[in-house]
Amino acid sequence: MIYLDNAATTKPYADCLERAGQYLIEKYYNPSALYAEGYNLHRELAETHRKMAALIGNNQDYSVIFTSCGTEADNQALFCGGRRGNVVTTSGEHSAVYSCAARLKELGVEVRFAALNPDGSVNADSLLSLVDDKTSLVSVIHVNNETGAINDVNALAKTVKAKNSRALFHSDGVQAFGKIPFRLSPAIDMYSVSAHKIGALKGTGALIKRKSLVLAPYIYGGGQEEGLRSGTENVFGIKMFEYAAVKKYENLKDNFEKVRALNSLLRSALDNGLFKILSPENGSPYILTVGAYGVRGETILHEVNDKGLIIGTGSACSSNSKLRHSRVMQACGVGGELIDGILRLSFCPENTEQEILEAAQILNSTVKNRRDKMA
Amino acid sequence: MIYLDNAATTKPYADCLERAGQYLIEKYYNPSALYAEGYNLHRELAETHRKMAALIGNNQDYSVIFTSCGTEADNQALFCGGRRGNVVTTSGEHSAVYSCAARLKELGVEVRFAALNPDGSVNADSLLSLVDDKTSLVSVIHVNNETGAINDVNALAKTVKAKNSRALFHSDGVQAFGKIPFRLSPAIDMYSVSAHKIGALKGTGALIKRKSLVLAPYIYGGGQEEGLRSGTENVFGIKMFEYAAVKKYENLKDNFEKVRALNSLLRSALDNGLFKILSPENGSPYILTVGAYGVRGETILHEVNDKGLIIGTGSACSSNSKLRHSRVMQACGVGGELIDGILRLSFCPENTEQEILEAAQILNSTVKNRRDKMA
Repeated sequence: MIYLDNAATTKPYADCLERAGQYLIEKYYNPSALYAEGYNLHRELAETHRKMAALIGNNQDYSVIFTSCGTEADNQALFCGGRRGNVVTTSGEHSAVYSCAARLKELGVEVRFAALNPDGSVNADSLLSLVDDKTSLVSVIHVNNETGAINDVNALAKTVKAKNSRALFHSDGVQAFGKIPFRLSPAIDMYSVSAHKIGALKGTGALIKRKSLVLAPYIYGGGQEEGLRSGTENVFGIKMFEYAAVKKYENLKDNFEKVRALNSLLRSALDNGLFKILSPENGSPYILTVGAYGVRGETILHEVNDKGLIIGTGSACSSNSKLRHSRVMQACGVGGELIDGILRLSFCPENTEQEILEAAQILNSTVKNRRDKMA
Repeated sequence: MIYLDNAATTKPYADCLERAGQYLIEKYYNPSALYAEGYNLHRELAETHRKMAALIGNNQDYSVIFTSCGTEADNQALFCGGRRGNVVTTSGEHSAVYSCAARLKELGVEVRFAALNPDGSVNADSLLSLVDDKTSLVSVIHVNNETGAINDVNALAKTVKAKNSRALFHSDGVQAFGKIPFRLSPAIDMYSVSAHKIGALKGTGALIKRKSLVLAPYIYGGGQEEGLRSGTENVFGIKMFEYAAVKKYENLKDNFEKVRALNSLLRSALDNGLFKILSPENGSPYILTVGAYGVRGETILHEVNDKGLIIGTGSACSSNSKLRHSRVMQACGVGGELIDGILRLSFCPENTEQEILEAAQILNSTVKNRRDKMA
């Protein structure tokens, strides 16, 4: 089976699982416990917090709150950061942010959505025009999960802060963390990441926050994560996240170049009479979204699945939605005969050239065959 | 090492880990994905939901929302169930409920705390007297995590509903689920459970809810868990929870009798000149809390730890609190020279008589030695 749906989830790294296994079996203690076995875990986790923050920011400025997923991190950012005045976000957000924004609206907060450029990145002028002195929070996705377009969130945060220095800036970095070169600049207050998108486990995420930011918890209880996220720490998941993240950052450049080559190979191997490339050239190489002319993406997904290829049709998380078409792709201006035929092909550094060539062959023949039948 | 802190967390079952391993490695897909590998996981999880609900309620009346922990389940119950009028709870709640109640108070909801009986159970008259026609939610812990006292939540829920049929009734069942014989009666609307207290993993919990109850999500996003808890499902953690819970319910009576015998053995083996038993005779046998006269619990915890025995001093989750004494034990009326010397000894069915006898010997000699030194 060729797996090209790595933006939905990734296969956990076997070597990281092996290392982390001790936290399931020998070191199963509660890190809040006072005896040595518990306290030692507490200290190990403190070190993990420092290591994780250092991968993308620096320990003077940033700290890490471990959460149960990227979605929870987004919920904490939106609900604890955006309670007053207005909240500015984009039409290109993952549902983890978009649904929180919709909920904030129900709660009486004014929510403003910035327009997208055709590649899925946010229109910077549109975003900035929506920010005013009543804006409490701005949230902009870092790498668009449906097109791979990269928002320059450091630059956007800076312009936002220049207009309203009290507005908080949050970015959903789930498709960026461990994948594209990036360091948090001080204008970014909160940054959400997820473990299972980078070879670690479902059930772990984090909200990376500026240390000086006073943030309310979203989950209340025993006061874990320095009071900002209660609940017994998922030690195994957190250590897996650390191991996978460190591995990703040690190989970030090599992985990036490798995936860029795979992406480029697939772009050129797909029949351009059958597919339109929708992802930008300068986006994250980890995501390649195409529109197949005149066919339904879901049909193609199932047909190629039978032939040994796994792909997506967009955000996996949108499959629970009742909307027929992706709201993000529509906001990019995709319509007509393409909007039904959207396919998302997403990579990991472990994919091979051979897999990509086979995938292209399967996709080309499947779409051609279906179009021939319809003709 | 003799482990008698099973109320804080438990060692995961090796056989369940072995069975669940497939969900880490082969079946790592996203259950929201549309291809066969994803959809099959979705179906497997649907079956898990049904199985879990059936262990404690019935599938006509109850469904399960998987969460990241018992604490999150409590947060959803309190914040989504208790937004209006007043909320009635008890002075014996775990911090996962207590801290939410405190937060609701800050948000302008009136919160009322029912008094405790000396054994840690709630005073039923006090509870009922606080319920009025403006009560939106009543939350009562099922098994008190510090004393093991059992609240008859089915009976309490019935009397609450008789006084105000619109009030929701929630119970934190974290120390009861999989341990004491119990079936949910229809008067209970929501019931929180946790995986890592029964041989499954940290990072998984559930809110069991009456199907007919309309509840808001607490975590918004891609619409997983029928829209009631977003975030990619932690398949491995959820399957581990299923396996451990099924195992617990298959052996519930035998385990209960075995643990009751261990509890009874420890009660009689502890020197009653050194320790006062604080847990009730008719409480959960899984928890035995004692007060050691005139010594500090934390000192004893560390000393016995050095001698190969792991015990608690109360709720592990309270160790993050700045309070010197347990608010729950104080609400039970424990004071004087006992309040400093509280020790919580908590069991699993895998503990042996030999371990209990050794533990008693270590505890007796340690406390005696310390008192001799002080004299």
